[in-house]
Amino acid sequence: MADNTLKYNLPETSIPKSWYNISADLPEPLAPVLHPGTGQPIGPEDLAPLFPMALIGQEVSVEREIEIPDPVRDIYRMWRPTPLYRARRLEKALGTPAKIFYKYEGVSPGGSHKPNSAVAQAFYNKEEGVTKLCTETGAGQWGSSLALAGSFFDIDVKIYMVRVSFDQKPYRKALMQTYGATCVASPSNETEAGRVILAQDPNTSGSLGIAISEAVEVAAKSDDTNYALGSVLNHVLLHQSVIGREAIEQMAMADAYPDVVIGCAGGGSNFAGLAFPFLGEMLKGGPAIKAIAIEPAACPTMTRGSFAYDYGDTAHLTPLVKMYTLGASFVPPGFHSGGLRYHGMSPLVSHLKQLGLVEARSYHQTKCFQDGVAFARTEGIVPAPESTHAVHAAIEEALIAKRDGQEKTILFNLSGHGHFDMAAYMDFFDGNLEDMDYDAAELERSLSELPDISS
Amino acid sequence: MADNTLKYNLPETSIPKSWYNISADLPEPLAPVLHPGTGQPIGPEDLAPLFPMALIGQEVSVEREIEIPDPVRDIYRMWRPTPLYRARRLEKALGTPAKIFYKYEGVSPGGSHKPNSAVAQAFYNKEEGVTKLCTETGAGQWGSSLALAGSFFDIDVKIYMVRVSFDQKPYRKALMQTYGATCVASPSNETEAGRVILAQDPNTSGSLGIAISEAVEVAAKSDDTNYALGSVLNHVLLHQSVIGREAIEQMAMADAYPDVVIGCAGGGSNFAGLAFPFLGEMLKGGPAIKAIAIEPAACPTMTRGSFAYDYGDTAHLTPLVKMYTLGASFVPPGFHSGGLRYHGMSPLVSHLKQLGLVEARSYHQTKCFQDGVAFARTEGIVPAPESTHAVHAAIEEALIAKRDGQEKTILFNLSGHGHFDMAAYMDFFDGNLEDMDYDAAELERSLSELPDISS
Repeated sequence: MADNTLKYNLPETSIPKSWYNISADLPEPLAPVLHPGTGQPIGPEDLAPLFPMALIGQEVSVEREIEIPDPVRDIYRMWRPTPLYRARRLEKALGTPAKIFYKYEGVSPGGSHKPNSAVAQAFYNKEEGVTKLCTETGAGQWGSSLALAGSFFDIDVKIYMVRVSFDQKPYRKALMQTYGATCVASPSNETEAGRVILAQDPNTSGSLGIAISEAVEVAAKSDDTNYALGSVLNHVLLHQSVIGREAIEQMAMADAYPDVVIGCAGGGSNFAGLAFPFLGEMLKGGPAIKAIAIEPAACPTMTRGSFAYDYGDTAHLTPLVKMYTLGASFVPPGFHSGGLRYHGMSPLVSHLKQLGLVEARSYHQTKCFQDGVAFARTEGIVPAPESTHAVHAAIEEALIAKRDGQEKTILFNLSGHGHFDMAAYMDFFDGNLEDMDYDAAELERSLSELPDISS
Repeated sequence: MADNTLKYNLPETSIPKSWYNISADLPEPLAPVLHPGTGQPIGPEDLAPLFPMALIGQEVSVEREIEIPDPVRDIYRMWRPTPLYRARRLEKALGTPAKIFYKYEGVSPGGSHKPNSAVAQAFYNKEEGVTKLCTETGAGQWGSSLALAGSFFDIDVKIYMVRVSFDQKPYRKALMQTYGATCVASPSNETEAGRVILAQDPNTSGSLGIAISEAVEVAAKSDDTNYALGSVLNHVLLHQSVIGREAIEQMAMADAYPDVVIGCAGGGSNFAGLAFPFLGEMLKGGPAIKAIAIEPAACPTMTRGSFAYDYGDTAHLTPLVKMYTLGASFVPPGFHSGGLRYHGMSPLVSHLKQLGLVEARSYHQTKCFQDGVAFARTEGIVPAPESTHAVHAAIEEALIAKRDGQEKTILFNLSGHGHFDMAAYMDFFDGNLEDMDYDAAELERSLSELPDISS
C-alpha cells in the first residue's frame, strides 16, 4: 500500500536532547555586538543585568550541540514532539504535483512555537535565582508563552503588550492572566521610556521597539527582575531549533526531503527554528534547500531595510547589533500580524540573508488572509495571521510547481493557530481589512537616524 | 526506569474501525420514541424529513459494532487518535495519591469532541445527496464543528446560535464563517418558532430548545435541507464512542484502568463518548467503574429534573423522548457554559442514570473556573467552561482519595479548550462571574407543562 499518512508523530523519547547552534557552521562569523555607549564589543558583564549567565553563554557560543536540560525537556513533553502534517487536502485543492508538508507548532499550550524558548529562558533564570521576568509582546504569542513558562517555574511575569494588539486581542491578556502573569498596554506610564513616547504621541499604536524599551528599563533598574526576549537573539533561535530537528526526523519518516523551507519572520525565531537545522545540513554538505523568510509588506525589514548596526529598541537601551533594520524609531502601521511588526531582524537570519543563504519576500495581508481561509477550509486549522504569510508562500510555491510541472517538496512552519486572532478574520470577512504599506517618508526618516558605526 | 510518560499517543492506524453501540449491551431496552402528534412509537419514515436513512438506522440499531466508513476515518486522521495525558503536574500540586488521566479532545480543528459526530453526519448526508444542513449551537463548539465538516464535504451549513452565547463569544461566529458557514443569533426572525418567542420576549437570552426548534423548522419545511443535532441522540453518542475506545487502548499503554470516569454533560455526548465504552466493558463482565456526569447547578437536568417523556425543543416540533428533563420551555440563566444549557439529557445517559449505572452531580460555575485556572497553571491547557466542570470533579475525587489515602485512578474527558471562551475567564478574574441557580418557580412552571404520556 502506498504511504498515505497524514501526520507524522514522534514519541516523547524523540524530543531532541540538544539544540542545534548554527553559529558553529557559519561560513563567516557574526559581526560583534557593540556597547551602546562606547561602540566597543560588549562582554558578558554588560548583559548580566538583563540575562542569566547561562543564556549569555548561549548567546556567544559556537558549539554545535548545546544540551537541553532535563527539566526543560520534561516540560517540552507536554506538547512536543509536535506533529508534521502532509497537507494532502490542500495539495488536492490546488491540483499541484508538489508535496506540501507543514510542521504544526500551534499544539503548544500557548498556541505557537514561542514556549520552546520561554520554557528554556524561565528555567535558566530560575536556576540563577531570578524571581521576576519582564518582557514585551506583539500579538501576544510570546507574552502568553512566557506567562505559561513562569507558571511552571514559579516566576512572576510582567508583560508590555504593544497597544494596537492589546486593543485588537483582549483574549490574549486574559490568557496571560490565566497563567498568572500581568499584562499592560505599551507604551505605558510605568516607565520613563513609555512616558517619553506618550508625551510625544498620546495616541501612538505602539511598537515592539517601544515595548522592549519599557521591559529592558524595568529589568535594568531592578535587582530581582530579569528581561526575556521572544525572538531576535541567538539563544532564542537556538531554542527554536527543536522544530527543525524534529522535522528532519519526520521528513525521513515520510521518505521525503524539502526543496523549499518557509517561515514567516518578525524577529526570525520560528523561521530559524525550522530552517536552521536544514541549513546546517546543507552547510555540512547535505542536500541544498531554498530557505525563504516571509515578512509583511507593511514592515519589510529584509526586503526594504538596511543591513547595518542598530538598536534593538526605540529608546536605545539595548546593545547595537548588525542586522537588517528599518530603523529603531520606525513605527509600522497597525496591520493584524502583530508578531511581525518589528523594525529589525535577528542578526543570524540577517547574516545568512547577506550571505545569500536565506531569501526574503514580503506580502500584503489580504492575500495572506485569503490563503489562510483556504487553508482552514482544507486542512481544518485556522492559522495565526503571522502564519498565513507562510501559508501564502507555500501555496505560491505549489502553484509555481503546478505551472512548471515540478514535483517539488515544500515544507513550511505553521507557527501558531489563530484562535486569539479571530477579530482579524472578522475584519477580513467584513471587508474591513486593507492592504497596508509602510510609510516611505517614515522609513526614510527612521533610516536616517541609524547610528553611525564605522565597522 | 519507572514509566514517567506524560502523553499516550496512538498511531493513525489505531483509530477505531467501528463505533461502539451501548444499545447492544443494555440490561433493559430504551423506552420507544413517540410521535408528537399521535403519541405512538415513530417509524423511520417519521424522521426521514430531518435525517438521512443511514443515521436513522444508527439511531435504532442494537448492533454492538457499527463500522466507521473510510472517508470518515480519513478525516478523523486529521486530529485522531487524540492524546491521553497523565496529569502528573496536577497530581503533584494536589499532593494526591490518585492517578489522574485525561483524554484531550481539544486538539480537533473545532477545538472539542464535536467534530467526531459532525464529520460522520456530514458524510451520511452527503451520501444521500443532501446539500444543506441546519443546526443549533450553544457555546458554538457544535456549530463550528458542523461548519468544519460542511467545508470538507461541500455542504452549506446554517447555524442558529443561542443569543446569550452569540453575544458572549463573537469569535465563534468568525470561526464558523472561516469554515464557510452562516451563523445567526437565535431566536431569529427567520423562523416561525423564532418569531413567536421574540414576540413574547424580545430580550430573551435564548436557549438550545429554541434554537433546535428553529433549525428543525427550516429542515422540515425544505426539500434540500436536513437537520443535524450535536448531542442527545443515540447516533451522536455512538459517533463519540471513538473517544472511549481510544482511551481503553491508551490506559492499557499506561498499565492502568480507571476506577472513576468523568465527563461534563449538557446533552451527554462527550460524557457518553468517554464513559460508554468503559461501561460496555463492565456490562460485558469487565472491571467496574463509577461513571459520573457533571452538570451545571443552573441547569441541573439529571439532579433536579424529571425522568419523563418530553419534547427535545421548545416549539414541540421534535418527537417525544423519555429522558431527564427540566421541561422543554425551561430557559436557564445565562451562565458561561453555553454547551450545558440544555433542558434535557440524552435518553441513553438518562436511562443508564435511571438504572443506577451513571451518577450525576451538579456544580456552581465559580469553583469550576477556579479549578480550570488551577488546571491551566499546572497542565498548561485552558479548559472550555463546560470542561471545567469535569476538571472540578476530577480534582474533587483526587482530594477525596488524598483524604482517604486511596490510590484511585481517575479518568476525565477534557472535551475542549477555552480559546474562544476567554471572555468568561475575564469575567472570572474581574470578579464579574457569579454563581447562578436555576429559578425554582421557572422550573416548577416548565415541569408542569410536561406532556401527559401514560407509558
